[in-house]
Amino acid sequence: MRKIKIVTIGGGSSYTPELIEGFIKRRDELDISELWLVDIEEGKEKLEIVGGLAKRMVEAAGLDWKIVLTLDRQEALKGADFVTTQLRVGLLDARIRDERIPLKHGMMGQETNGAGGIFKAFRTIPVLLDIVEDMKRLCPNAWLINFANPSGMVTEAVIKYGGWKKTIGLCNVPIRYEKLCYEVEELEESSGDLFVKFAGLNHFHWHRVWDKEGNEITGRIMEKVYSPASKKVYKGMNNVSDIPFCYDQIKDLGVLPCSYHRYYYIADEMLKDELEKYEKHETRAEVVKRTEAELFELYKNPDLKEKPEQLTKRGGTYYSDAACEVIVSILNDKRKMMVVNTENRGAIADLPYDCIIEISSLVTSHGAEPLTWGKFHSNIRGMLQQQKAMEEMTIQAAITGDYGRALQAFMSNPLIKKGKAAQELLDEMLVANKKYLPQFADKIRELEGEA
Amino acid sequence: MRKIKIVTIGGGSSYTPELIEGFIKRRDELDISELWLVDIEEGKEKLEIVGGLAKRMVEAAGLDWKIVLTLDRQEALKGADFVTTQLRVGLLDARIRDERIPLKHGMMGQETNGAGGIFKAFRTIPVLLDIVEDMKRLCPNAWLINFANPSGMVTEAVIKYGGWKKTIGLCNVPIRYEKLCYEVEELEESSGDLFVKFAGLNHFHWHRVWDKEGNEITGRIMEKVYSPASKKVYKGMNNVSDIPFCYDQIKDLGVLPCSYHRYYYIADEMLKDELEKYEKHETRAEVVKRTEAELFELYKNPDLKEKPEQLTKRGGTYYSDAACEVIVSILNDKRKMMVVNTENRGAIADLPYDCIIEISSLVTSHGAEPLTWGKFHSNIRGMLQQQKAMEEMTIQAAITGDYGRALQAFMSNPLIKKGKAAQELLDEMLVANKKYLPQFADKIRELEGEA
Amino acid sequence: MRKIKIVTIGGGSSYTPELIEGFIKRRDELDISELWLVDIEEGKEKLEIVGGLAKRMVEAAGLDWKIVLTLDRQEALKGADFVTTQLRVGLLDARIRDERIPLKHGMMGQETNGAGGIFKAFRTIPVLLDIVEDMKRLCPNAWLINFANPSGMVTEAVIKYGGWKKTIGLCNVPIRYEKLCYEVEELEESSGDLFVKFAGLNHFHWHRVWDKEGNEITGRIMEKVYSPASKKVYKGMNNVSDIPFCYDQIKDLGVLPCSYHRYYYIADEMLKDELEKYEKHETRAEVVKRTEAELFELYKNPDLKEKPEQLTKRGGTYYSDAACEVIVSILNDKRKMMVVNTENRGAIADLPYDCIIEISSLVTSHGAEPLTWGKFHSNIRGMLQQQKAMEEMTIQAAITGDYGRALQAFMSNPLIKKGKAAQELLDEMLVANKKYLPQFADKIRELEGEA
Amino acid sequence: MRKIKIVTIGGGSSYTPELIEGFIKRRDELDISELWLVDIEEGKEKLEIVGGLAKRMVEAAGLDWKIVLTLDRQEALKGADFVTTQLRVGLLDARIRDERIPLKHGMMGQETNGAGGIFKAFRTIPVLLDIVEDMKRLCPNAWLINFANPSGMVTEAVIKYGGWKKTIGLCNVPIRYEKLCYEVEELEESSGDLFVKFAGLNHFHWHRVWDKEGNEITGRIMEKVYSPASKKVYKGMNNVSDIPFCYDQIKDLGVLPCSYHRYYYIADEMLKDELEKYEKHETRAEVVKRTEAELFELYKNPDLKEKPEQLTKRGGTYYSDAACEVIVSILNDKRKMMVVNTENRGAIADLPYDCIIEISSLVTSHGAEPLTWGKFHSNIRGMLQQQKAMEEMTIQAAITGDYGRALQAFMSNPLIKKGKAAQELLDEMLVANKKYLPQFADKIRELEGEA
Repeated sequence: MRKIKIVTIGGGSSYTPELIEGFIKRRDELDISELWLVDIEEGKEKLEIVGGLAKRMVEAAGLDWKIVLTLDRQEALKGADFVTTQLRVGLLDARIRDERIPLKHGMMGQETNGAGGIFKAFRTIPVLLDIVEDMKRLCPNAWLINFANPSGMVTEAVIKYGGWKKTIGLCNVPIRYEKLCYEVEELEESSGDLFVKFAGLNHFHWHRVWDKEGNEITGRIMEKVYSPASKKVYKGMNNVSDIPFCYDQIKDLGVLPCSYHRYYYIADEMLKDELEKYEKHETRAEVVKRTEAELFELYKNPDLKEKPEQLTKRGGTYYSDAACEVIVSILNDKRKMMVVNTENRGAIADLPYDCIIEISSLVTSHGAEPLTWGKFHSNIRGMLQQQKAMEEMTIQAAITGDYGRALQAFMSNPLIKKGKAAQELLDEMLVANKKYLPQFADKIRELEGEA
Repeated sequence: MRKIKIVTIGGGSSYTPELIEGFIKRRDELDISELWLVDIEEGKEKLEIVGGLAKRMVEAAGLDWKIVLTLDRQEALKGADFVTTQLRVGLLDARIRDERIPLKHGMMGQETNGAGGIFKAFRTIPVLLDIVEDMKRLCPNAWLINFANPSGMVTEAVIKYGGWKKTIGLCNVPIRYEKLCYEVEELEESSGDLFVKFAGLNHFHWHRVWDKEGNEITGRIMEKVYSPASKKVYKGMNNVSDIPFCYDQIKDLGVLPCSYHRYYYIADEMLKDELEKYEKHETRAEVVKRTEAELFELYKNPDLKEKPEQLTKRGGTYYSDAACEVIVSILNDKRKMMVVNTENRGAIADLPYDCIIEISSLVTSHGAEPLTWGKFHSNIRGMLQQQKAMEEMTIQAAITGDYGRALQAFMSNPLIKKGKAAQELLDEMLVANKKYLPQFADKIRELEGEA
Repeated sequence: MRKIKIVTIGGGSSYTPELIEGFIKRRDELDISELWLVDIEEGKEKLEIVGGLAKRMVEAAGLDWKIVLTLDRQEALKGADFVTTQLRVGLLDARIRDERIPLKHGMMGQETNGAGGIFKAFRTIPVLLDIVEDMKRLCPNAWLINFANPSGMVTEAVIKYGGWKKTIGLCNVPIRYEKLCYEVEELEESSGDLFVKFAGLNHFHWHRVWDKEGNEITGRIMEKVYSPASKKVYKGMNNVSDIPFCYDQIKDLGVLPCSYHRYYYIADEMLKDELEKYEKHETRAEVVKRTEAELFELYKNPDLKEKPEQLTKRGGTYYSDAACEVIVSILNDKRKMMVVNTENRGAIADLPYDCIIEISSLVTSHGAEPLTWGKFHSNIRGMLQQQKAMEEMTIQAAITGDYGRALQAFMSNPLIKKGKAAQELLDEMLVANKKYLPQFADKIRELEGEA
Repeated sequence: MRKIKIVTIGGGSSYTPELIEGFIKRRDELDISELWLVDIEEGKEKLEIVGGLAKRMVEAAGLDWKIVLTLDRQEALKGADFVTTQLRVGLLDARIRDERIPLKHGMMGQETNGAGGIFKAFRTIPVLLDIVEDMKRLCPNAWLINFANPSGMVTEAVIKYGGWKKTIGLCNVPIRYEKLCYEVEELEESSGDLFVKFAGLNHFHWHRVWDKEGNEITGRIMEKVYSPASKKVYKGMNNVSDIPFCYDQIKDLGVLPCSYHRYYYIADEMLKDELEKYEKHETRAEVVKRTEAELFELYKNPDLKEKPEQLTKRGGTYYSDAACEVIVSILNDKRKMMVVNTENRGAIADLPYDCIIEISSLVTSHGAEPLTWGKFHSNIRGMLQQQKAMEEMTIQAAITGDYGRALQAFMSNPLIKKGKAAQELLDEMLVANKKYLPQFADKIRELEGEA
């Protein structure tokens, strides 16, 4: 087995122990020579805490993997085989702003799909493109496994604009929904008895399900999970409130939605719920910040040598595990069927050929081989196309710093009010993110001058 | 010149005098043997009043055209050459409901694109499909010129589901915007010096403009009309409030919007404006109802022998004129460039091949020959695709009476709140339109039972 | 394990022993209650011979599978789980005519892609559509596994025109080429170390290859197999002469061709070679007829209890094995990656959405899930599109019996001379196939009248 | 009226008098300040002869247009408004080789679609790209009107690779066919009573026809012109032999073919005909060379002050007239419907979005606005797609000098035999064109070394 070097950018993240656990769990398929955890000056303390835990975990597992903690990204990238990106530009405080400023204006923030997601893209995309430039020089054969959000847009920027084809973007939502199907059908996931096929965009995908006999059971699962007549309640994602959909509407879709569709299909209820949380300072970002503080306290404990149970509450469960699985699937050419962000190339016939989609794929040693999905019915098609167009504009604005295009992205986002309200929100968020948006510097200066 | 028979369904409309005037103005290109004005029992009085005026107008023009007033649609259709449809199922009271019920729920009604437009489609499409069935038997070679709203959806239903290929759908908005370009450039419209090219959907289209030298002046017109720095104020459509767009955003479009885009790009301001009108009972429908009452008073005057000036205020100006021009262009194979609703067939590359679009076309004796538009940039593409998908679902629900699909159409409409609010609105509107929606009879009965 | 009923139409074929062997080999994944071998009156003797051998093979394997020989297709189909079709309308004599008549006119016959293939489609498609009608009544849940040639066109007719979605079309060529890749790389096929991805049409596909490390080795295999500088000679298909390609040209393709491309890329050499065989009465059909006669002599031997080695020479090797593998993959939801004929749905972006393609797919219990291939470069794209158009016309002519369309199919086939020569060939072949082409009866009568 | 400068590259062509006549005929729509006729050293004598005639023609017409004869292309291009290109690299001797070498190998040469056309593209495209580079510096606002053959490929190269969007490619074939429709229907062309709509590629297009009443009369014209039962014989193009099509086949097309389709649909007969001409030294190139010699003798006559009648025999009739009409249509924004080579952008849905097609368009001051054609039926679609793919490869090989791609273009051309024969022909033609193909210099040297 070939020894490999892995570099994790944003290594000081509270997720890291799950990643480490994921690697350890796959020790038979994975032989790590070096694992570099990279962070920036502001994240140094967290890096040391989480890095310490990582070392203890590896040691406790009896492995000789070398863990290196560093603030020197370039040093880390040299000769890497896999680079994983889980960074958060501006840390959780930026996420708090992403969520709270829009809510102050009576709009959903939402760190991936709403105004918050657009700003997370604005902050993150230029950094990822920088990393790619480093990789071109320092590790030209490495795979980039991105799970920095908004994962779909970041992956599209990296592949289309950065030109780094060896990129796979990840998300934990499909995994959660595949597990849910097994739960509903009262089957063991390990049986692999269900065929669950996903397609769409990151945080904006749908799925169909077949049983072992080849019968499509999408409708049956729809009914069991979502019908008001259903007796059992199934839990979706931690980070999305489980407010019921309008059953008549989602039944008409003919395919199963994901949690995030609540932001679109029952936007009104979701916004009310979020505004209540806003009042109580319980937006997701604020909750996560508190959870993280607790986690880091735990991580500091020199006797802790495994991932603490509490991490599961954090929201990103399965994320790191998915990343580990992608890595071993590439490394060992496992051709495992996973849901990843990769180039469309016609897999979803309705979307641009060269855009990035989230799709059930075989993960091979040469990358993701997406299954063909075909066309969506108009009850999904239009909405999906608009979401992709919004993503395209967000990426363009993130790269160019063009204010008109940024405003256009806002105007195309269904979670943002249309008109002056959008512009006022955009302006306030630009100023609030000043430190992280050099591409918008001129406009921000102009806005500050006006204020 | 061949003598032709024209049948106007909804002949009792207040628009009819403009139509008559349009025919008279084109007497050199048009020789009418018979003009049948058809209406239903409820419209009988209006039909007699407006029919009387029509007869006086034709007589005053010294023409021998025979005007027939009838409630017998089938009798009228026999051997027709052209059938124009300008009917309003449920009369203006239905429009008042279309606008006021959504506003009561805090949403835009809007009789073409909002919840009101969806319900107008629900009421109108089955009637048009009935007319087409009659035409198949009674006038199999006739052209159908539709200007019943929502014109795009009605035209799509008639062509795709009714199978009546010889259909052209019309709208007066592009004409208004072409005139505006001439006004901005201080040119006579009759000079034909501008090349104005439109594409999109009904009440959802964009245009580009070139001058006589071949320079694209889209950006210059954009600036003159919409820039806050512009000194002059230009008037859009009568029936859409002239609240300013966000200039930075529409400038980014690169092509010129139409009035109706205000409902999407500055939805917030438009809704507030509309809610004020709602309070004052000045919604468009209510204003039009009063205007119409006045018009019919005028029409009654036996000395009136021409279209009264006041009709211009009514909102549909140029509508009937466009219909007349389409008729003479078909009749005389004029190949005039006009903006019509016709089959896409690739003219707008982003939209389904067989859908109906609104597009600059040559109107020939064998129908509309659309100019090729190509692809839209993502700043328009996604929104346009979603609008078309919403139209498709509305048409499907209008034909099948499927409640889930109707709800889906609501959920896909950007002017409607998402979630329970949408469903409550749908339910209330279904019940309120009970008389005109036999296809939804079962569901309405169920809803009434619940209430 | 569920017991299943399999029906093989054309059961008297010399291939049947391979099929039986394939089933026996998979006894752990397959439990057969009944296997019906169906043939027609003319094939009765062969059916009895081969059926006898089949029974002996099953018995020798210690299996209790019931083998039924019958001329009553409807009786056989009742309650079937899988129907395999390997019939040859007109038997080998028809194939001899398919090959020799065109050669007489100086053109390639070729029983799948040339004039011969078009006539095989004309004879076979109506029979398959008949079978499908029977299946609708007698075994509405059965899977149809077709390997009657031309497999792609037959599959397209069955799915698009017959409406039988549960159909998979098969061919042995891709298997042969996958094996060749392993041979070239000196790897065990069982290692699964290569990822070989195919796309195109039946007998008209290309493939790319990656090694276990994820490197694309398409170019390396191209060089080893086809470069004039290469030392080793690799064998292609039995039934296609191994005349060398022009290396400069196929290298430019960037993807690997299949044997049948010789008919297109080196048509001249292939025709000369075929004309020599024609002179010596050694066309493929004639050789096969002799081989078959020998095989049936062997099959008669009551001591023979296994597939004789000589069958391998017959040409269809791996065909029946592929069919067996598809059946167990469906039955056990194995999701095995196989190359099958199935609906495109965007997998090859250049071809019509609803056409049938030959593509690497996962074979699941609900059918084939094709991998996304994307667009071909223009050096393949145009040729592939023309071939599909030719197939479409052939299918249409096969169903309607339209002479103009049949002639058009001829004119679109690159292996047929264009002009009067094509028409004369078509006419002669129509008359020669009179007995099997009821759909063309009127035209044939007219042609006979003229003669 | 704005005074304009026109530059004609290849000004010494025998066509030039027709061009001059065309300009003079349009004196009311066109005010020329300067007309520069540009040629190269080898064409100097012809330039002087034809230039002299041009001057006499303009003078005789009483016009003050300045005619300048020059070998200095860059001087000529300065400040040009329109540049027309009618050059022939290698003069008629190159065309003779283009036609005779393939015929020697038993293949059709054909200077636009066959091997000859591919070589004409190889010689011409680099020169046109050079001209475009000059234009970028010297006349950045000029329109390029190309009628150098193969017009479609040259136009595609100039627009896609040269980036000169203000280009219109021309051909005289559609004009000839439009005239034929009027002739068949016994109507005056000036009546404009027919609507003739063309789409396809240069020398590879189809058309449909409607009468003044809007009835499609495509089938009627098909029957009158092509049915063996038709009494009258209609003449096609001068330069294509009028051998009859197979009526059953072209009737099945449903749309009308052009002369050049004979090379594809009755290739066999055309080749025989051409081989006879080859034997008699009467290939088109040889005939034209003799015609030209006679023409230049006539042109020398100082008393000749108008286009001599004999020019009509030359083959390019209407070509120059079309160019003149395009120029005045652009200049005066006439929006005349003409058939031109321009960007597809979806007008023909089956072909790549950015390729060049030949299509009925409005010629406006900002360029060609193509009518939407839509999809072709499979009986045309596949062949058209293959032709475009062949064009793409030819253009790529012309620009890069890649031998494999050139060979591929040969292999994709239906008029060229497939296999070694193609390669031998390619090699011989490369060497024979050595002087004009610097991009292939290395390969030619290699071939010469081998010989």
